[in-house]
Amino acid sequence: MITDPFDTGPTGRFRTLCRTYPDDTVFRGADGFRPLWGPVFYRGRANGTARLLVVGQDPAQTEAFTRRILSGQAGRRVQGFVEKLGFTHGYLMVNAFLYGIFNQDMALPHLNDPEVVAYRHRWFAAALAPGRIEAVVTFGTPAFQAWRTFVTSPEGSGVSVFHQRALHPTADKPGGPISRRDLLDNWNVALERLHDRLGTPDVAQPLVPYGADFAPGELPEIPSRDLPAGIPAWMRSTDFWATLGNPPGNERANITVEVPAP
Amino acid sequence: MITDPFDTGPTGRFRTLCRTYPDDTVFRGADGFRPLWGPVFYRGRANGTARLLVVGQDPAQTEAFTRRILSGQAGRRVQGFVEKLGFTHGYLMVNAFLYGIFNQDMALPHLNDPEVVAYRHRWFAAALAPGRIEAVVTFGTPAFQAWRTFVTSPEGSGVSVFHQRALHPTADKPGGPISRRDLLDNWNVALERLHDRLGTPDVAQPLVPYGADFAPGELPEIPSRDLPAGIPAWMRSTDFWATLGNPPGNERANITVEVPAP
Repeated sequence: MITDPFDTGPTGRFRTLCRTYPDDTVFRGADGFRPLWGPVFYRGRANGTARLLVVGQDPAQTEAFTRRILSGQAGRRVQGFVEKLGFTHGYLMVNAFLYGIFNQDMALPHLNDPEVVAYRHRWFAAALAPGRIEAVVTFGTPAFQAWRTFVTSPEGSGVSVFHQRALHPTADKPGGPISRRDLLDNWNVALERLHDRLGTPDVAQPLVPYGADFAPGELPEIPSRDLPAGIPAWMRSTDFWATLGNPPGNERANITVEVPAP
Repeated sequence: MITDPFDTGPTGRFRTLCRTYPDDTVFRGADGFRPLWGPVFYRGRANGTARLLVVGQDPAQTEAFTRRILSGQAGRRVQGFVEKLGFTHGYLMVNAFLYGIFNQDMALPHLNDPEVVAYRHRWFAAALAPGRIEAVVTFGTPAFQAWRTFVTSPEGSGVSVFHQRALHPTADKPGGPISRRDLLDNWNVALERLHDRLGTPDVAQPLVPYGADFAPGELPEIPSRDLPAGIPAWMRSTDFWATLGNPPGNERANITVEVPAP
């Protein structure tokens, strides 16, 4: 028998936000978004119990299948990050953008479009409303800017929760200016600052920094309790099983899901 | 804004059944099943409010994506059927098999394997427990046999709920012995018998039988309230967007999801 817990779904304000959300007149294909794959809302505890708020960027093809954000390569890296802080489940992850992006140059300038902001702020407000969030970590520049926009807005004016920025989990592009080591150095600094602020981890443990590269244990599986019922184990413990095709840099690109070789 | 209701998920006994279920030692690849895609549990009201119980056969590639049974071609035909009975949402659909099948000749003989039966009977018992189910309709021979097995078992011995069998929703295979007209004649008989037994439809309306073929309105969209949050509208109102590939008649076949042409 399989006895995996699963995400029983959003409650309260979070549930409302999954029922009423901006459409493709806000996240437009002509602006580099992929509204055709539908919104992907969150991962983790959308029920008011989260104590760590994680902000990412936008969902990709893996997330179009799992219907939870940060469940592919970037997601497993982020999962390792929060688990280093002793957060095995007491987190809520949301993205700066509700829909996927196929062209960043076109889409990123819309980060602060009024309707994009208004909806995102409702998520931030819902996350903070129970008064349990002890820290916020933003991954990547759009996430950082999204949080800055919030705390400098009327809705976020009274918010004093600790915020730490960190590089995007896949900032170390091959041939790019940021190396794997640069990424992990940046994350080590972020971890240290966050570790001091988080008083109630799920598991109290000393902080172990990253080395020169991700160790296998630093890329844990996506917990079954973060995903819908029945998502098979291989989707949580491997990556790159969902690929964009035909052509990939396109609003209408298809997605192929392939079981990895045994 | 999109304001679609979504399925907020199974509750009570149904929730337990989505957390504890047979694995690939019961539904084996060597027996023609596709456990690699994970189980797909139900569609509709897994919360004790259903008054009509629908039994289908097994999930396919569309259902692997939506994570709800009967959401592809067969599902839209069944949706039209239950809506003719005035059931727009007061139904629960479950399958005879928890996992997909890639080879029926290999898999169907396992319909009554002890662990397959034990788990399926827990779903039937959970569906009947609130005492609200007024009728059961089984689509196809495996579903019919599954229900027969239940009502002749110790667990089902006191069950007297009305049962009606009907042909499988895609029994009209091209070149096969059953024509579209045969299928719809069979369904018209089933509809008439069920209509008399169902005292509390969601919408009271006269029964309108099928003609020689499905009319467009007889293939309604899968209601958003039956699917997870954020599933885009085109996945509910079109079909054949998910295809098996490489090679299709294989346990490990991949799935490609393609947005239909506008």
